[in-house]
Amino acid sequence: MKLGLIQMPVTAHRDQNVRTALRYIEEMKQQGAELAVLPEMFLCPYGNESFRSFAEPAGGPVWKAMSAAAKETGLYLVAGSLPEQGEDGCLYNTSFVFGPDGRELARHRKIHLFDIDVSGGQHFRESDTLSAGTHPTLFDTPFGRVGVCVCFDIRFPELSRWIALQGARLIVVPAAFNPTTGPAHWELVFRSRAVDNQVFTVGVAPARDESAAYVSYGHTLAADPWGRLLAQFGAEAQAAVVELDLGKTDTVREQLPLLSARRADLYDLRWDSSSLR
Amino acid sequence: MKLGLIQMPVTAHRDQNVRTALRYIEEMKQQGAELAVLPEMFLCPYGNESFRSFAEPAGGPVWKAMSAAAKETGLYLVAGSLPEQGEDGCLYNTSFVFGPDGRELARHRKIHLFDIDVSGGQHFRESDTLSAGTHPTLFDTPFGRVGVCVCFDIRFPELSRWIALQGARLIVVPAAFNPTTGPAHWELVFRSRAVDNQVFTVGVAPARDESAAYVSYGHTLAADPWGRLLAQFGAEAQAAVVELDLGKTDTVREQLPLLSARRADLYDLRWDSSSLR
Repeated sequence: MKLGLIQMPVTAHRDQNVRTALRYIEEMKQQGAELAVLPEMFLCPYGNESFRSFAEPAGGPVWKAMSAAAKETGLYLVAGSLPEQGEDGCLYNTSFVFGPDGRELARHRKIHLFDIDVSGGQHFRESDTLSAGTHPTLFDTPFGRVGVCVCFDIRFPELSRWIALQGARLIVVPAAFNPTTGPAHWELVFRSRAVDNQVFTVGVAPARDESAAYVSYGHTLAADPWGRLLAQFGAEAQAAVVELDLGKTDTVREQLPLLSARRADLYDLRWDSSSLR
Repeated sequence: MKLGLIQMPVTAHRDQNVRTALRYIEEMKQQGAELAVLPEMFLCPYGNESFRSFAEPAGGPVWKAMSAAAKETGLYLVAGSLPEQGEDGCLYNTSFVFGPDGRELARHRKIHLFDIDVSGGQHFRESDTLSAGTHPTLFDTPFGRVGVCVCFDIRFPELSRWIALQGARLIVVPAAFNPTTGPAHWELVFRSRAVDNQVFTVGVAPARDESAAYVSYGHTLAADPWGRLLAQFGAEAQAAVVELDLGKTDTVREQLPLLSARRADLYDLRWDSSSLR
């Protein structure tokens, strides 16, 4: 499975961001990608004001542009995330996923909102504007089942575990860590989720813009089920195709049986059934 | 809290191993330790034959020697692990924990047995001789609550999560990774459990003996709740005191609220109540 990782620059201009995304998707197609991934909040600067002013609904212009891009290129597309204007009047940090026919395959609304206040470091409160999703998200491809998280979601072992137990071989995460949490935890979290759950993990971030109110760490990466890094970018804009052999999940699970050696007789991770579609 | 980490050499001679352990415990006391930790299977070579021939029950001679050492030094002692002859006729990989008065405070029987078969790498089947424990283990000290795992247990996010949710600020893990899994996962697993659960984690291994049937990776370490390594040994025999400020768990949990931001309304980690003492 060839995955196109798009660490694109994000500006304050909606149309420019959409054009950039479309250009990179096309470039990934040219380079042989089968699935392309945009970063978290590729549509607007990461900030509560922007979330309000850039929000648009499913079926809106950006949704349509992404659907069309998937169809035109014939790619699976995890369209990063954007501020979604929900039908309930709430805003969500939402990742729309499209199939090669342009149809929406899945929609992940970030479940864990990012509220952080590190002394002398990063401060942010997503919950000032955003509402939290309630559904874990998976979709199927001919290459295998794929789970989707948005950024802070990957911090919570319960969600990745659930996704892996539902049969995912890959967890795709549009994300934007920052200069405080990035160097400390970015690689650690993606590698450890991969090792613990014997899946591939992929984190795709916006390119760093030092002048932004919220500075993205960048460092888009892919890790294999043994915890090896298959790719890691720097902070600059970059896009590249990385090849994942999803069959490797079977080999690793056989040799080091972490999923099957779980003591399911002793503990159980239950999800509220109303949160499962 | 001053923790004495004892990466001791383990030989095929029971009495010698006990003497080595006692000497190091005394040395840790001299260096100001308040809690000392021995490695997994400090009593015997790591192997199914040894597990059978070295096994002894709670209250047996080694148990008594460790209890006496805790009392004489006035230390809390996580006495690594040894093959325990259970009252049920089964063998367990058990960590006995003693208080400064010499009383047994806790007893952790390894819950996840180590069965692994890495192609071209490590092979081992603990389940050929050992039975698995069923109880998560915590004990209280004046410094804070402490959880205990044995080696492979730390691979399973559910157990560490459970321990943290029960109020632990530190997870102590007598362990013995190997030259296959050690370089790949040892540091990653201990750092990520610390970050995810906002606790300190400590892994204490036997010194490496290249002539042993099972070669320990060594690399005894301590990680803080931000994922920083406070100490990491090499492969050789070594013991040292490391200071943990358990209050730091509060600071980190406040700044980056990973435990409180869990979506307990959506998911729940349940343990079989009969497995909880």
